[in-house]
Amino acid sequence: MIYEAGSYDVVVIGAGHAGCEAALASARMGCQTLLATLSMEGIGLMPCNPSIGGPAKAQLVREIDALGGEMGINIDKANLQMRMINTGKGPAVQSLRAQADKHEYHRELMKTILQQEGLHILMAEIEDIQCQDEQVCAVITRTGARFACQAVVVTSGTYLKGRIIVGDLAYEGGPANQFPSVKLADSLRSMGITLGRFKTGTPPRIDRKSVDFSKMSEQPGDPDVPNFSFITPKANREQLSCYLTYSNKKTHQIVMDNLNRSPLYTGVIKGKGPRYCPSFEDKVVRFAHKESHQLFVEPEGRDTDEMYVQGLNTSLPEDVQMAVLRSIPGLENVRIIRTGYAIEYDYVLPSQLKLSLESKKIAGLFTAGQINGTSGYEEAAAQGLIAGINAALKVKNQPPFILKRSEAYIGVLIDDLISKESDEPYRLLTSRAEYRLLLRQDNADLRLTEMGRSLGLVDDYRWQIYQNKKRQLDSLIELLQKTTYTPADKTIAGYLQKKNSAPIKDRVSLWELLRRPEVNLSDYVEMGLIPPQNPDIMEQLEIQSKYEGYINKQREQVIRFEKMENKLIPADIDYDTVSGLSSEALQRLKQFRPESIGQASRISGITPADINVLLIFLKRKEGIR
Amino acid sequence: MIYEAGSYDVVVIGAGHAGCEAALASARMGCQTLLATLSMEGIGLMPCNPSIGGPAKAQLVREIDALGGEMGINIDKANLQMRMINTGKGPAVQSLRAQADKHEYHRELMKTILQQEGLHILMAEIEDIQCQDEQVCAVITRTGARFACQAVVVTSGTYLKGRIIVGDLAYEGGPANQFPSVKLADSLRSMGITLGRFKTGTPPRIDRKSVDFSKMSEQPGDPDVPNFSFITPKANREQLSCYLTYSNKKTHQIVMDNLNRSPLYTGVIKGKGPRYCPSFEDKVVRFAHKESHQLFVEPEGRDTDEMYVQGLNTSLPEDVQMAVLRSIPGLENVRIIRTGYAIEYDYVLPSQLKLSLESKKIAGLFTAGQINGTSGYEEAAAQGLIAGINAALKVKNQPPFILKRSEAYIGVLIDDLISKESDEPYRLLTSRAEYRLLLRQDNADLRLTEMGRSLGLVDDYRWQIYQNKKRQLDSLIELLQKTTYTPADKTIAGYLQKKNSAPIKDRVSLWELLRRPEVNLSDYVEMGLIPPQNPDIMEQLEIQSKYEGYINKQREQVIRFEKMENKLIPADIDYDTVSGLSSEALQRLKQFRPESIGQASRISGITPADINVLLIFLKRKEGIR
Repeated sequence: MIYEAGSYDVVVIGAGHAGCEAALASARMGCQTLLATLSMEGIGLMPCNPSIGGPAKAQLVREIDALGGEMGINIDKANLQMRMINTGKGPAVQSLRAQADKHEYHRELMKTILQQEGLHILMAEIEDIQCQDEQVCAVITRTGARFACQAVVVTSGTYLKGRIIVGDLAYEGGPANQFPSVKLADSLRSMGITLGRFKTGTPPRIDRKSVDFSKMSEQPGDPDVPNFSFITPKANREQLSCYLTYSNKKTHQIVMDNLNRSPLYTGVIKGKGPRYCPSFEDKVVRFAHKESHQLFVEPEGRDTDEMYVQGLNTSLPEDVQMAVLRSIPGLENVRIIRTGYAIEYDYVLPSQLKLSLESKKIAGLFTAGQINGTSGYEEAAAQGLIAGINAALKVKNQPPFILKRSEAYIGVLIDDLISKESDEPYRLLTSRAEYRLLLRQDNADLRLTEMGRSLGLVDDYRWQIYQNKKRQLDSLIELLQKTTYTPADKTIAGYLQKKNSAPIKDRVSLWELLRRPEVNLSDYVEMGLIPPQNPDIMEQLEIQSKYEGYINKQREQVIRFEKMENKLIPADIDYDTVSGLSSEALQRLKQFRPESIGQASRISGITPADINVLLIFLKRKEGIR
Repeated sequence: MIYEAGSYDVVVIGAGHAGCEAALASARMGCQTLLATLSMEGIGLMPCNPSIGGPAKAQLVREIDALGGEMGINIDKANLQMRMINTGKGPAVQSLRAQADKHEYHRELMKTILQQEGLHILMAEIEDIQCQDEQVCAVITRTGARFACQAVVVTSGTYLKGRIIVGDLAYEGGPANQFPSVKLADSLRSMGITLGRFKTGTPPRIDRKSVDFSKMSEQPGDPDVPNFSFITPKANREQLSCYLTYSNKKTHQIVMDNLNRSPLYTGVIKGKGPRYCPSFEDKVVRFAHKESHQLFVEPEGRDTDEMYVQGLNTSLPEDVQMAVLRSIPGLENVRIIRTGYAIEYDYVLPSQLKLSLESKKIAGLFTAGQINGTSGYEEAAAQGLIAGINAALKVKNQPPFILKRSEAYIGVLIDDLISKESDEPYRLLTSRAEYRLLLRQDNADLRLTEMGRSLGLVDDYRWQIYQNKKRQLDSLIELLQKTTYTPADKTIAGYLQKKNSAPIKDRVSLWELLRRPEVNLSDYVEMGLIPPQNPDIMEQLEIQSKYEGYINKQREQVIRFEKMENKLIPADIDYDTVSGLSSEALQRLKQFRPESIGQASRISGITPADINVLLIFLKRKEGIR
C-alpha cells in the first residue's frame, strides 16, 4: 500500500559520492532535501580504490571544494597519506593524491550529512519515480512511502540492476555485498530513458599480516602534508605507507593459462569496462609484450588489515586470483580477505542529459555519477554537486548553473559526457582539457569561489579565507609591478649574476623579473625586497608570472572558443528542416541535441562543413525572426 | 569449480557476537582458525538493541569476561552510558547495563579479531559443510574455496533463510539490509539436522533531531561509571542520556485499528517470536487493559543521529509505524530513518545438541547463538565462547568444557536450551537460575577465572589481576576472622550503640559482626580497625559475610543436586528396554537424550516417578557390568 509520507523540494537517491554532494548542495541552497540510501553504511562508501585525487581528479576535488562541496574537506579529515604527484612537471598537471581511510571517510561524511540543516536521511529503496506531464512529482519507497517533490537526483552508482561476477559465479548484487536496486531501472525505462550496460571491477583485498613488505618498495607520504580543501587548516597526521611491487612472466602465464575461465573472455560479462582502469587479465592480453605491471599495495584504513591491490582488478575465478597473487614478490604467502569481482550495472546514456544534468525528456529529473556512465569517485562527486545545485535552482525557478570548459574541469567532464558518445565508462584525464594551464588545482578557488558564493554554497568562513587570499595576492602583485629597478642597481645585478641570469638592459619590475625561471619570490624575501609571504601566495604568484605568456595565449583561445559556445541552438530546432547536413551529422544532432554550436562541433562525426551549414541556417532563422 | 584453498583446525561461520567469541577462543587456545563473514561490516554488528547487560545478561557478560572472552572488554571500550540496575535489590539481581555505540563496538571488535594470532578473517558465504563418516571435514564458499577443517562452529544468527517482513512486504534478506544465507540451511538439513523457524523484530530507528526530549524523562548514566570487564581500568568517558516516554490510549487505538494489516495477525509471519521481547502490537493485544507502555529512546552511537525506540519492535506497515510514533509524547514530529521490521529465520532445534554445543549427530559440528533458538547478544556470545572452547578441545582430543548450573549462568543457559523444549526464542532470566545467590555478577571472576586459565584463555595480565584480588580477599578475611572483641571493648560497644545495633554478649570476630546489616567495612576502616581497602574488595566481602547464611544454604542444595547431576546416563542407552517409563517420558527421553539424571529430571513431562524408574534401571545395569 502506498501512503503519503511527506513532501520535499528535492529527493536524492543514493548516498555515495555523487548523492552526498547533491544532497548537501541542495540543502545548503535552502531546499528541503531527502537523501534516500539503501543502507546507512553505504554513505560515502568507497567500494573500490581507497584513494582520492591524482591527475585531473585532484583538480575536480579542488573545484568541488571551491564551490562549497564536501569531498575535499572530507578527505582532509579521513586520509592515511597525502602525496603531490608530478612535482617534476609543470603546474598544470601537478596533482594531489590521498590514500583514504575508507571507514573514517564514511563516518565523517555521515556526520556532516546528519548535521546539515534541511537535509533528512532515510534508509529506503526508492522503487519508483512518479511524473506528471513529463515533470517529476514524487518518489515511492519499497515500503510504500510516497514523498512528493519537485526534483529528483538519481545517483545509483553501480547498484542499478547490479550483477556481481567472479569466475563462473554470477548473481544479482550491488558493490560491497549490498542489495542491488532493481525496480528503479524499470521506473526509469518506463519514463522513456534509455539505459545501457557497463561493467567495472575491483581487485582482491588482502590481509596486511600475510604480506612481506621487505620485497616491495615503500611509498611514504609527503613529509609536509598538503590538503585538498582551501579551508582545511594544516595538520600533521601520522601517515601510512603504500608499497610498490610488480607482476612478472609467471604471473602473466597464470592469467593466459586461465583465460578460458575468465568471464571477460568467455562472454559472461557483456557490459563494457573502463579503458583507463582495465582488468588485469585485459592488460596481460592487450600488452602481451610487457613483462611486468606495477601493482600498489595500499592500506584501506587505520582500523583494518585489509589492503587494496591497485592494478589487479579482476573477475578471474578465485583460485586463479590466488595463484596470480602468490606469484608476485612479497605476496608468496598472501591471504585474500575479499575476492576481486566484476560488477555489471545499468547506466543512463548521457546524451539524454542537458548540461545542467537534467534529463532532456523529464523535467526535474537529474542524474549524476556512475549512473551517467562515468568512473571515479571524483567524477561522481563533481556531477553530484552540479546536479544538486541545478535541482535546487530548478525548484527556485532560476536558470541552471553551467560551468564552461574554460572555467573548470567539471565543465570539461560534463560537456564531454553529454556531447561525446562513449562506449565505455568515462574517466577524466588532463589531456581532455584544452585549457589545462588555466584549470590548475592551485587556482580552483580563484576560479570558482565567487560562483559558489553567489549560489549560496560558500559560507562566511570560506568566503573570508578566500577574500584574505585575494587581497594578499592583489597587493603583492601591485607591489611587484610597481617596484622597478634599472641596470645600475647593484643588488639586482649581483643577484642575477649569482643566479647565472642575464643582466637587465632596461628598467624592469620585480614582476617582470619573476618570469625568469631562475628567479624566485623567496629570494626577493631573503634580499628584503618584499616582506615575508604566505607560501600559498608565493606559489600562486610564481605560477602566474612564470606561465603568464602561455596563460594569456590560452585566454585568447578561450575568447575565440566562446564565440562559438555562445551561439546557442534553439531547443526546438527541427534538424530535418536544415538542408545540407550530412546524414551522419543529421543523425548525431538529433541524438545529442547540442545546446550550442560549440557543443555541436565536439560531437564525433560532425564536420566543420556541417557546422557551417548549421551557422547559416541559424543566421537565416534569426533574420526571419 | 571447487578448489582447495587451505586447511584450518576450526572454521567459524558468522562474525556476530557468537562467532567472534568462538573464533577468538579457538585461536587463543592455539587452534588455526578461520572466521568467515558475509560482510566485514557485519563483525560484531548490533542489528537490534544497542545495549548490553541488564538482569541475567550482565552476569553472562561477566562470566564471559572471567573466562577470557571479549564481550566485556569490548563494551567497556564502546559504551555511551553505563548504569547499575536493581541497586535497591539484593546483590543476586543487581546488574550492569551499557548503552553501546554500535559503530564503535563493531570497529573495536574488528580490530581485536584482526590482531588475534592464529585467526584469519575471510569475507565469504559458506554454502556447504562437508562430512565424512558423520564427522565434519571441510567447508565450501560460494566462490568455490574449500577449506579442510576438523571442527565447524555455525553462528548464523538470523541470516539462515532470513526473510524480512514489514506490513504486506516480505523479501529474502538478513538483518541490516544484508544478504541472507540460504544454501547453508540446505547443507545442514542434508546432514540430518532438524531446523525450525523463529521470528524476531526490531523497532523503527528515528532521527534524534526530530525528537522533543523536553516531553520525556531523561535517563542519565551512573556518575561513577562502572565496567563490565574485571580487567578494564577505570575511565571517565562522557556519557549520553536515554529518554523515557510512554505510549497512550491513542497509540493503542491506532494499533487496534490496523491489526488487519499486521503480518503477525494476518498469518504472514509463521515463525514464533520471543515472549520477553514481544512486538508492540502483541503487547497492545495481550495486555489490552494497560493504558500505556514504557518506551526508551536510546542513542545508537556518538557519530549518528539514529535513535532506537526500545519497546516498539514492530512489523506493522510503515504508515502505521509512523502514526504510532507520532501519537507518543515527544515524537509528534518524528522522522523515521529505518523502518521497523520482523525477520523470520531458520534455527536448529537445540535438543539435537550436547552440553558442549556439539551436534549429537555430526562430530565436530557446533552451533551457537541465535541459530540455537536463543535471543540476545549476551546469550549468543556466551554460547559462542563455549562452542569455540569445545571446538578447540575437540581438535586437541580433550574432553569438553561444561559449566554446571551451579557454576555459571552460562551453565543454566545451555542446560535449559538443550533439555527444555522451547517453542519461542529463549531468553535468559535471573529466575531461571536455582542458585542465583551464588551466580552473582560481582563474583564471576572468583567462580571462573581459574577455569579460563587452565583452558589457556586467561592471559598473564588477567591472571595477575585475579591473583592480586584473591590474595587481598583472603588476607582481609583472615584479618577479620582473627580480630575479635569482648563485650568489654569500649570502641565496639560505642560503635554498635551509635548504629542502634544490639550490644554483643560473647567474644565475636569482626567477620561475625559484619553479618549485621548496619555494620560496614568502611566503618571498620574509619575506626582504624583494619587498613584501608580497595572498594571492590570491600563490596565482595560484605556480600560474602552478610549473605553467608543464604549462600551456605544454596551450597548445600548444590551438593544434593550434583549427586543427581553426576549420575550419568550412557550415551548408548536404549530407552525402549527401560520398562516402567510413561509413554510421554519415553518419547521425551528419546528426543532429548539427556546426559545425566539431573538433566533428565528437568525435561518437561518427565516426572519424579520416571526418574526413579531410570535410577533403578541404571543401578541394575551397573550391577550387571
